Amino acid sequence: MAHRKPDNDYVDGGGDIENDGTGSDASSFLEAREPLLNLKSRTNTSSQIAIVGAKVYPIESLDYEMIETDLFKQDWRSRKMVQIFQYIYLKWTLALLIGLCTGLVGFLNNLAVENIAGYKLVITSNLMSNNKYLPAFAAFAGINVVLAISAGALCAYVAPAAAGSGIPEVKAYLNGIDAHSILAPSTLFVKIFGSILAVSAGLVVGKEGPMVHTGACIANLLGQGGSRKYGLTWQWLRYFKNDRDRRDLITCGAAAGVAAAFRAPVGGVLFALEEAATWWRSALLWRTFFTTAITTVVLRGLINFCRGGNCGLFGQGGLIMFDMHSSIPTYTNADLLAVVLIGVVGGLLGSLYNFFVDKVLRIYTLVNERGPSYRILLVTVISLLTSCFAYGLPWFSKCIPCPRGMEKKCPKIGHSGILHCQPGHYNDLASLFLNTSDDAIRNLFSSAKRNELEISTLIIFFTGTYFLGIVTYGIAVPSGLFIPVILAGATYGRLVGRLLGSLSTLDLGLFSVLGAASFLGGTMRMTVSLCVILLELTNNLLMLPLIMLVLLISKTVADGFNRGIYDQIVKMKGLPYLEAHAESYMKHLAAGDVCSCPLITFSGIEKVANIMHALEMTGHNGFPVVDEPPFTDAPELCGLVLRSHLLVLLNRKKFTKNRAVCGGQALRMFDSFDFAKPGLGKGLKVGDLDLTADEMEMYVDLHPITNSSPYMVVETMSLAKAAILFRQLALRHLCVIPKTPGRNPVVGILTRHDFMPEHVLGLYPELIHHK
Amino acid sequence: MAHRKPDNDYVDGGGDIENDGTGSDASSFLEAREPLLNLKSRTNTSSQIAIVGAKVYPIESLDYEMIETDLFKQDWRSRKMVQIFQYIYLKWTLALLIGLCTGLVGFLNNLAVENIAGYKLVITSNLMSNNKYLPAFAAFAGINVVLAISAGALCAYVAPAAAGSGIPEVKAYLNGIDAHSILAPSTLFVKIFGSILAVSAGLVVGKEGPMVHTGACIANLLGQGGSRKYGLTWQWLRYFKNDRDRRDLITCGAAAGVAAAFRAPVGGVLFALEEAATWWRSALLWRTFFTTAITTVVLRGLINFCRGGNCGLFGQGGLIMFDMHSSIPTYTNADLLAVVLIGVVGGLLGSLYNFFVDKVLRIYTLVNERGPSYRILLVTVISLLTSCFAYGLPWFSKCIPCPRGMEKKCPKIGHSGILHCQPGHYNDLASLFLNTSDDAIRNLFSSAKRNELEISTLIIFFTGTYFLGIVTYGIAVPSGLFIPVILAGATYGRLVGRLLGSLSTLDLGLFSVLGAASFLGGTMRMTVSLCVILLELTNNLLMLPLIMLVLLISKTVADGFNRGIYDQIVKMKGLPYLEAHAESYMKHLAAGDVCSCPLITFSGIEKVANIMHALEMTGHNGFPVVDEPPFTDAPELCGLVLRSHLLVLLNRKKFTKNRAVCGGQALRMFDSFDFAKPGLGKGLKVGDLDLTADEMEMYVDLHPITNSSPYMVVETMSLAKAAILFRQLALRHLCVIPKTPGRNPVVGILTRHDFMPEHVLGLYPELIHHK
Repeated sequence: MAHRKPDNDYVDGGGDIENDGTGSDASSFLEAREPLLNLKSRTNTSSQIAIVGAKVYPIESLDYEMIETDLFKQDWRSRKMVQIFQYIYLKWTLALLIGLCTGLVGFLNNLAVENIAGYKLVITSNLMSNNKYLPAFAAFAGINVVLAISAGALCAYVAPAAAGSGIPEVKAYLNGIDAHSILAPSTLFVKIFGSILAVSAGLVVGKEGPMVHTGACIANLLGQGGSRKYGLTWQWLRYFKNDRDRRDLITCGAAAGVAAAFRAPVGGVLFALEEAATWWRSALLWRTFFTTAITTVVLRGLINFCRGGNCGLFGQGGLIMFDMHSSIPTYTNADLLAVVLIGVVGGLLGSLYNFFVDKVLRIYTLVNERGPSYRILLVTVISLLTSCFAYGLPWFSKCIPCPRGMEKKCPKIGHSGILHCQPGHYNDLASLFLNTSDDAIRNLFSSAKRNELEISTLIIFFTGTYFLGIVTYGIAVPSGLFIPVILAGATYGRLVGRLLGSLSTLDLGLFSVLGAASFLGGTMRMTVSLCVILLELTNNLLMLPLIMLVLLISKTVADGFNRGIYDQIVKMKGLPYLEAHAESYMKHLAAGDVCSCPLITFSGIEKVANIMHALEMTGHNGFPVVDEPPFTDAPELCGLVLRSHLLVLLNRKKFTKNRAVCGGQALRMFDSFDFAKPGLGKGLKVGDLDLTADEMEMYVDLHPITNSSPYMVVETMSLAKAAILFRQLALRHLCVIPKTPGRNPVVGILTRHDFMPEHVLGLYPELIHHK
Repeated sequence: MAHRKPDNDYVDGGGDIENDGTGSDASSFLEAREPLLNLKSRTNTSSQIAIVGAKVYPIESLDYEMIETDLFKQDWRSRKMVQIFQYIYLKWTLALLIGLCTGLVGFLNNLAVENIAGYKLVITSNLMSNNKYLPAFAAFAGINVVLAISAGALCAYVAPAAAGSGIPEVKAYLNGIDAHSILAPSTLFVKIFGSILAVSAGLVVGKEGPMVHTGACIANLLGQGGSRKYGLTWQWLRYFKNDRDRRDLITCGAAAGVAAAFRAPVGGVLFALEEAATWWRSALLWRTFFTTAITTVVLRGLINFCRGGNCGLFGQGGLIMFDMHSSIPTYTNADLLAVVLIGVVGGLLGSLYNFFVDKVLRIYTLVNERGPSYRILLVTVISLLTSCFAYGLPWFSKCIPCPRGMEKKCPKIGHSGILHCQPGHYNDLASLFLNTSDDAIRNLFSSAKRNELEISTLIIFFTGTYFLGIVTYGIAVPSGLFIPVILAGATYGRLVGRLLGSLSTLDLGLFSVLGAASFLGGTMRMTVSLCVILLELTNNLLMLPLIMLVLLISKTVADGFNRGIYDQIVKMKGLPYLEAHAESYMKHLAAGDVCSCPLITFSGIEKVANIMHALEMTGHNGFPVVDEPPFTDAPELCGLVLRSHLLVLLNRKKFTKNRAVCGGQALRMFDSFDFAKPGLGKGLKVGDLDLTADEMEMYVDLHPITNSSPYMVVETMSLAKAAILFRQLALRHLCVIPKTPGRNPVVGILTRHDFMPEHVLGLYPELIHHK
């Protein structure tokens, strides 16, 4: 009990502020801005800004609550069968469109990367086979740098928010945090083309994270409800003008992104469920499943079309990216020990990877902050470094003869892996480095060619990709984390297999898969979704028990050191993510202990000037409305009004000279959809309002737009319990009401920021050792 | 607005009952039982009893809320690092034990069924091969009846709750409904052995549902916290003496059950997530995954052990039950039409299946209600009917010669499928009927033997299993629904394939799988989990797009007619299941409109007699506690007290002569764990209390056991919004507080029953057309 403020220490003193709240004139309004609690004045110190791209921007919370205003209720209750049908029909149509578009983008990405990177490698090989090694390097590095700079320039100048993986931002959005332009059309454009350029440039980045972000952007764009400005809207789309429905669409988009990137529909659903989404319903599971099914069907059709050779260098591979169908794992108990070893070491290396990525990101943020040209410079440096690694390191490896009976499959001119070798020989390190990531992974997962990759090759390639993966994430290009982690992990696994030699009977390809699983588990800390994604990538269910084992071990080991990489990035960017569990120190506090002050309340019928003042002076997005005498016998909480709704109301200028209830009149003047949430950045700002001095002295009835049943908790509820309520119900505002009657009917408002450790521990630093 | 009662019609009249609530003597207590609202007195008409086994029993809600009493808070805050470690350690140990035990039971089940049913078939075949057809039938039917009656007797006399699938009950439990003895040790015992006997008896029942129930029972047993009575408890186990932790364990158990039945670990996790669980957290996903991984490892080890021939007739099959690894599906657009057809017709037949099962169940309930002997009679009749079908129908089929080159694999003496045929010939219908379900499914899924099953055979077998599946569910044996549905569906799919003939290039085995998928989708209405389970059963990921398509279509079609079979059974049994969405008519009502009357409240310091009277006269499990003058200035809601806590408090007899606050004293007198939720049926009853007349006149301080921060909603909140809050937070009681101050601080309590359609539409029948 030592660290606990007695529950009632300010409750008893509350009587003297009983008649507080906004009165009818400006002076009493100012009084209302005084702290309601007799504690030190507390403002929220938690960050209300976050890093998006390279700069900091203000962030806003999303509103998943049912805003039960009179207007909404009227609309809601009068909705007819046909309108409900429209809504359901459109919901599924949008899910279909998301699946379709994401599948198309995924295919486009594949097609472009295979062709650009393919022709680049062809040019390089051709020069090499003529012994023009220096021109070959110049061509290789030159093309890489040009591609990388193009990607960097797009990110730096067009859409800074498109840099990086995008999964942390999507995850934050689904948690209720809307960051600036994170799902804007420009971001979508850059994400698609930047990702193609960056992957083609041979940077150690994947397309999976960007695909998830792309899927989310597509979903957001489709869920905008069209553009009123250009008349590009449709009556039916108005049902999606709220955060709840947009959230569902974006969840579908994220799932479709994974499905398109890995051609793994079930893995996509599970990824959305396990990693991306914060709130989940069974109905959403089904819709997500439908979306990913569409994505897969689209991909499958297009891939089949390309098999005929219609798509340039793209044409290999089916729906299973790394088919290991033929290898049947049989394992002994001794093999299980090897698997446990892989899991433990993979967990360690994975958490170390997270640690380094975090450090590098912090350094890069300093560089990126200095301006677009610095960002492009950084991209250039990393691109050159990557080219040097890829072209230079294979020279340390010897040429080895092609295995007997496999001469035809041996790397030859026009393909990777030849380097300086004689015909009939090849360089195994070049077959990994001078290749696309997908083909390198395919080589690592391959089981047949048992002796293809030397131990020294594996060591060099592991070190190279581990290092490059770490230094590449954070530069201003769209960069996924899956592929670098799989590359390093698969090399590590195969290396363990080679080192164990005859001690284990397991196939080397299986060792690679297990190594990749251990790294993925160690960095991303997912379980079921990774397991299913790996199965869908390799098509061999007999590996399941081993993959499960490795994932469980590596996640457990890595969790002992730090957090998952996406959580880490979310935190580093300053996004106020709500955790599923309440922190331990929250047990020692009550909900009333952390409310930010001052609390600003409005009267049910409020002076326009007071509202304008509050809107201009604060950044609050929700204000309690309190009905007061003479309209009621005692002050009574009428509800909560949102800033965005106030702005629409004021903009209409339906004011009255006296304090009079307008009641049902407003229901005729306004339509519920006037107050619907507009798309990105299209909402009214305080500056947009143009009110005359006369108008400022008039009154406006807030009742029709007041959410008359906000969620409430009593001030003595423990903060831990309130935090769980807040997160479970996906709230934006939570009213805190007094325990004892006769006081002001609301003592504070809890928002997402009030639950952040920075805020809570800032107010009560003595609780820090409970963390 | 027509169907909406004005929000405030009883609010204004509330002033006259302001000083209501229980006073200090019995007469004012009786006043308190008068309706608080000036509406007609309303009692909850929703069923508080449900069918368990064949009888109706009272049901109780589970409490997943954090009960923030002073005692709990003290304990919670003083928990040390080592205790948190104990809790975490134990949580994982229990998950491991659940996985282990469920895996063992699953193996035992397999072993026993294969041996019992195997020897039964051997005896029958041997008699048949000596042309003793009548004795063969007598032996076959006789053994079947004996086995079926044993299963029926176990269910009828030992544990009626073990009859049926068990999935609906587990689903209801995870939704917060505790039905009588549904997870008791006797149920576990009967479920395990009854299931073995019923499946061995050749009844058209599966072991999957019973395995889920078995897993849940094991989890519940392990989470009981041992027995205090026999000293078989352990300090550490006390952390699990609450509904929240038990729920998590039971979710793990349900997942392990599916994993053990289908050898499908990921499918098990997804089943628990999609079908069984109502509340889900990411952390739970991981734990469930761990449990199913353990189950799979156990199963795999034991199956490997049996391969050596150590387990009698059990020994075939690996971790994949119906391996279709070798068939590579290639399909054209024309094939997709066939797949759509399968989905549509499968959906129709699936929903028809649900319809018939419901009808048959209602008839059987009438029989089962009449007593155990009637139940056993019904089992006998169905067993004889099944034997007649299985033995008699194959005679309508001709003997066909074994395909060339497959003579060795052709059914021969000592195996099923021979019947009256010459050597080198076999009866294809007998190979389905006179076989275990697993082997019949294996035959149906088999692709190589293209002409093995005649169209007439498939028609007869389909009709037979469809009919037997419907009439078998509901008899007093543990009976899963998966296997009957898969059997009928696979036959239907293969039949479609045969009928289409050369119109489709798809493999017949694949047709069977798609048929099974369409039936499963049409009856159970799951998506992702069924998809993964089918993949794990057949080990062929290339089928994934087709299976997804079929599942989506059949579910959509079937949803147009009726609900999923488990939901249907839950409803039929009268279990008050909370749906994820609010019903449409709830929009037209406010939370205050449906509260049951009369509301009984206690004073903070209450007379023992009043409490006893309330406990005896009502079945309520929660009572609001209101502090009143002179202890406070005005009536003030102190919180909510639970019946179970009151019983413990009264049992200790720490009463005072006068109305005095005992405060911190109670914190020393009691331990938080005295109030922990005891295991099944071990709680105190009112009848257990033995209070003298003197004690009845004394007072007791309820503050230390009052949950001081119950969740609250304002009476004007729409019922739809309150319903979502109630379900999301997994509540048992929800306090409804008045909109206007100055009235009694609580106007009602909402429980699960108040959200049931029977109750709401009983009060407001005019809303029925909004349903």
